[in-house]
Amino acid sequence: MSKLFVWVNDSLIPSDEANVNIADLAVQRGYGIFDFFKTIDGKPVFLEDHLDRLFRSAVLMRLELKQSRDEIKVRIKRLIERNNLNDSGIKVILTGGFSSDGFNIAEPNLIISQQAFQIPRSMSEKGISILTHEYQRQFSDAKTLDYLQAIWLQPILKEKKADDVLYYSDGMIRECPRANIFIVTKDQKVLTPESGMLKGVTRKQVLEISADAYETETRDISMEEFRNAKEVFITSTTKNILPVVQVDGHVIADGKPGEVSRALALEYNRIIYPS
Amino acid sequence: MSKLFVWVNDSLIPSDEANVNIADLAVQRGYGIFDFFKTIDGKPVFLEDHLDRLFRSAVLMRLELKQSRDEIKVRIKRLIERNNLNDSGIKVILTGGFSSDGFNIAEPNLIISQQAFQIPRSMSEKGISILTHEYQRQFSDAKTLDYLQAIWLQPILKEKKADDVLYYSDGMIRECPRANIFIVTKDQKVLTPESGMLKGVTRKQVLEISADAYETETRDISMEEFRNAKEVFITSTTKNILPVVQVDGHVIADGKPGEVSRALALEYNRIIYPS
Repeated sequence: MSKLFVWVNDSLIPSDEANVNIADLAVQRGYGIFDFFKTIDGKPVFLEDHLDRLFRSAVLMRLELKQSRDEIKVRIKRLIERNNLNDSGIKVILTGGFSSDGFNIAEPNLIISQQAFQIPRSMSEKGISILTHEYQRQFSDAKTLDYLQAIWLQPILKEKKADDVLYYSDGMIRECPRANIFIVTKDQKVLTPESGMLKGVTRKQVLEISADAYETETRDISMEEFRNAKEVFITSTTKNILPVVQVDGHVIADGKPGEVSRALALEYNRIIYPS
Repeated sequence: MSKLFVWVNDSLIPSDEANVNIADLAVQRGYGIFDFFKTIDGKPVFLEDHLDRLFRSAVLMRLELKQSRDEIKVRIKRLIERNNLNDSGIKVILTGGFSSDGFNIAEPNLIISQQAFQIPRSMSEKGISILTHEYQRQFSDAKTLDYLQAIWLQPILKEKKADDVLYYSDGMIRECPRANIFIVTKDQKVLTPESGMLKGVTRKQVLEISADAYETETRDISMEEFRNAKEVFITSTTKNILPVVQVDGHVIADGKPGEVSRALALEYNRIIYPS
């Protein structure tokens, strides 16, 4: 396989040469933001939404991008051409930069990398199992580099044979580390949390699809309401719509992906995959 | 000034060549730990305590150091010899490493860097002003790379002309981002929080000194008790004992460093500075 290229600021370089100096605030203080989108057949999916969020995260975390939106789009285009991957994930990281005192934000370093990556083009027939964990992500409106909790939990998920974790705080469900959560209530309402979580791009699309067919609402959801859900699924760039069939060892409904999840997944796939 | 050298894993290299690949979990996910100690007249101060904490942070955050304690000490010694700085700060960072999937901890990268750095050898006669801010640091027993909140707050501190911030949570004071907090009560007790904060090396020394002369206790301290303190000071590797004379715009006692703070600072300096 040919070597993948990466943008580090203004240079498009082979990934094994894609370095940042240790003085960067990301290495020194874990400070930075990012966004991540996929390409299908060489085309970015929902790029404008992801760039909207990238710029929003940057503002929230006080990072001043030197590059314009158009400039970033040009780099993404050139990256896709150079690496020549059809289905991929592209990550845009904005670090805290080279701070003179190691504590104040400097000019961000902009890193754009790509990896081959493909999701099965039909929804999982099996569904996943998740664990709940009490945790509130800081600066939850921003897609920051802070994944301490999620990465720390990985060995526990493996040990308990769970596929993912769902954070809750103040008795309300919030988000998975890299996905949003939806429930379908017994009276067929589609709900997803509104606060204390990142507003996902897939979440936004699924909300639009859902509103066409079901009573759909964004509002905070208690753990109790969550435990009584008829269906649960998560949404993300890397997972599309993925049904959850088990929570903390308890099987949801009959333990199979529910009909609303299936219908939404079919419709979502119709949008993102060329026919 | 000659160029400073840095250890990146097994290589002692000039700081401008001290890079990590962007695949490191520190850059990708802000994952890592560190410790920081000073040298005075070319000698590390409380090195064993700092190494104890480094290893403790590593265990807490599931990072498996390949290097032994002795190996790290040899590298620190060689770094001090190479850079030839008398008074300095030395930082040992342990990153999440090059994760194959970008989400599971790998073999940590070990970075040891040094910077010239000197604290005035007598206690500040002026004291500092601080702001309080509600926040609970995650994994507070470990010295992680997570300084999102502290760095984000810097512009606010500048705007409000404050020198530092004190975190509180659940109505209890916890810590400053890079220092521990102490209070002296009206009946001359010396207190410092016990939970929800990092246990500082300077804090430990100050507790020992204090116990010889005052009733001294580690226990959680409410905001109310804090607001009624007769004296307040913070402790850290870079600050030694630094009196706080103003909190959220309110002057403490007569607005000058108190007598207990002064006495402890004198004694502390006697320990760390050669006569």
